[in-house]
Amino acid sequence: MPVNYLTPAPEQLHPVAGVRLGVAEAGIRKANRRDLTLIELAPGSRVAGVFTKNRFCAAPVHVCREHLKHEDIRALIINTGIANAGTGASGLEAARQSCAAVAKLLDVAAAQVLPFSTGVILEPLPVERLKAGLPAALSALKADGWHGAAHAIMTTDTVAKAASRRLASAEFAATITGIAKGAGMIRPNMATMLGFVATDAAIAQPMLERLVKEAADESFNCITVDGDTSTNDSFVLIATGQGTAKFESVDAPGWNEFKQAVIEVARELAQAIVRDGEGATKYIEIAVTGGRSVAECKAAGYAVAHSPLVKTAMFASDPNLGRILAAIGYAWNLDPSLADLDDGKVRVWLGSGGEEILVAENGGRAPSYREEDGARIMKPAELRVRVDLGRGSQAAKVWTCDFSYDYVKINADYRS
Amino acid sequence: MPVNYLTPAPEQLHPVAGVRLGVAEAGIRKANRRDLTLIELAPGSRVAGVFTKNRFCAAPVHVCREHLKHEDIRALIINTGIANAGTGASGLEAARQSCAAVAKLLDVAAAQVLPFSTGVILEPLPVERLKAGLPAALSALKADGWHGAAHAIMTTDTVAKAASRRLASAEFAATITGIAKGAGMIRPNMATMLGFVATDAAIAQPMLERLVKEAADESFNCITVDGDTSTNDSFVLIATGQGTAKFESVDAPGWNEFKQAVIEVARELAQAIVRDGEGATKYIEIAVTGGRSVAECKAAGYAVAHSPLVKTAMFASDPNLGRILAAIGYAWNLDPSLADLDDGKVRVWLGSGGEEILVAENGGRAPSYREEDGARIMKPAELRVRVDLGRGSQAAKVWTCDFSYDYVKINADYRS
Repeated sequence: MPVNYLTPAPEQLHPVAGVRLGVAEAGIRKANRRDLTLIELAPGSRVAGVFTKNRFCAAPVHVCREHLKHEDIRALIINTGIANAGTGASGLEAARQSCAAVAKLLDVAAAQVLPFSTGVILEPLPVERLKAGLPAALSALKADGWHGAAHAIMTTDTVAKAASRRLASAEFAATITGIAKGAGMIRPNMATMLGFVATDAAIAQPMLERLVKEAADESFNCITVDGDTSTNDSFVLIATGQGTAKFESVDAPGWNEFKQAVIEVARELAQAIVRDGEGATKYIEIAVTGGRSVAECKAAGYAVAHSPLVKTAMFASDPNLGRILAAIGYAWNLDPSLADLDDGKVRVWLGSGGEEILVAENGGRAPSYREEDGARIMKPAELRVRVDLGRGSQAAKVWTCDFSYDYVKINADYRS
Repeated sequence: MPVNYLTPAPEQLHPVAGVRLGVAEAGIRKANRRDLTLIELAPGSRVAGVFTKNRFCAAPVHVCREHLKHEDIRALIINTGIANAGTGASGLEAARQSCAAVAKLLDVAAAQVLPFSTGVILEPLPVERLKAGLPAALSALKADGWHGAAHAIMTTDTVAKAASRRLASAEFAATITGIAKGAGMIRPNMATMLGFVATDAAIAQPMLERLVKEAADESFNCITVDGDTSTNDSFVLIATGQGTAKFESVDAPGWNEFKQAVIEVARELAQAIVRDGEGATKYIEIAVTGGRSVAECKAAGYAVAHSPLVKTAMFASDPNLGRILAAIGYAWNLDPSLADLDDGKVRVWLGSGGEEILVAENGGRAPSYREEDGARIMKPAELRVRVDLGRGSQAAKVWTCDFSYDYVKINADYRS
């Protein structure tokens, strides 16, 4: 059960002109589940993506990087069940065959297809089953297929994740719709497990490429469930150019507003992943201010967000808040610039709902802090930890969830 | 229940001439438990220590560092229950008062006493209770007090941890005995939670200081339970000089043999901590070879050892071994030199008992690998993961445990 998150209803996910989506049951790993998603793009669509920095990156990620060197991407093919990672040369061949099969059906070149996989690592992708499922996915293509696709890309997700915006101002009109999946092995680096956002706006390729990075940095690159960076992280931004909005330079009217809306959609999807984190019972925002750089603020946030001790205390609603200080204290492991952090200048607050209390200052517990206040504030399902590093003016936020029995259960049982 | 570890019997812990230990119930946090340990050293003892690099380091760690600038340390005072970390200026004062009280009883200077604390962070040390408990600890001092002290320094430990060696060769004779505690918040950096090793050998101070670092690097700095570096990690090596062995230079006969024995005692204690890791059901050695540096081998080992996904798969005895590859793939987070790791050259083996199988090579699953072999090998309580990075001649080992329901239970319930 996710923390305060419901999949938007099908009618809340606005179709994006130039995008059609179809799903099918290909039996990739298990029978009787929709595990294959085909996304077709209109000619002239522009696409940009960011991908995992894991050195064992999946075969489809390699192929995506190759194919994105060309323009005119016309389709995305996504399977769940098998990640096609840790599969060597035969995995690459399987990813290429998937693209070729889609290309043949759509009468385009194989290099105009991007492949994505998610699921178990180190097992071969049954590419014949994937190919056999393609005709059904093709015939299911429809403009309002976002809701179905959001479900078909799930693995250990308990809810489908989607977000949509319609912008209409005096300056421009545009639609932005996206879907994502992910619940475990979540500590994206450059991107999340799988995220796809499309808009009908026309966007110059260099601007699209900057935007996909910026949106990833402010969304998927700010979340963690378990600190495990996946082999398959991919986040793709599609601009079909089928609408009326045209952004060919950063001075184009409405660009900033549009950009913010893309970032918001990406952030909504990223936060949905955390809310549905494996076994999550709490949704936690860690806001770090007063750093010398955004990077060191993120490092401090991630140290707190990754600490199993902090996460289990959150699960128990136990204000054992010294664990937060301990995590901040070793955050220099993640960013060496924090090696000279002055613990006497760090302040830590805990909040939920409309309430926030100072927990620590001057290297110790705040005199005003009362355990019963901490216990009360930790009870709700949504918590905020605020940290001021007391050494600069930069800030960053990280979103995470708690660590429960069910995380162990899900990951001890996954596959079996 | 620890994994294949039993506390040595009292008679197996050899007294070290010049060291007496006494324990008492001071009611630091809970009544009716031995929570105060006094260790008295003979005049002329030499002491060296390594301490946590956590920026929120505990008050006693600050005071230890100060007092170790002087020679002639005469006593160690250790309390459990309260870590005296995240306690600011009043915490420092409490640590100093503890030393002063011990000094008064022993008729030495406060700077000749080293204080150690372990327990809950962010709560004040009840120094009056500690002082009130000192006379009982003093009157309990005895040379064969190691077994009792090993018990009195426990917190969430389920077993006391101790190791002892008697060396007698043609060249020299010496005794080495040590104790340690720790089960959670274990990812030592320069030292473990608390570890104390004493020998009756005489060792020149600069050699002792190098030895304590080397022993820590090959023992406590190679283990992890949950990746949380504690605020209180301390590892102290004591040389009383009351025996017949004298090591005043590295050319002294027997020094290398002696040094190795100290490292072995430290390693036995460190491994005992992992075997008793919170909720542990498996004990796992991760041996990394073929790196360009020891540091990058350790980074790869720690990435695997910290991965909640690897640890939960180990708990389930589920050979979901792609998770190991994924962890190696993002190990560059811990050591940037691994950013150019060639995944095609990495090989991974899994072993237990006398058996070992190749799991992955050439970027994918080894053709000879069979899932049923993986499942069989993962069943025992002691496992080995061997990784060859395929890019150099350096090696390192890391020891860890699995991640079970009980880790969550212990840490969600701790304090309550």
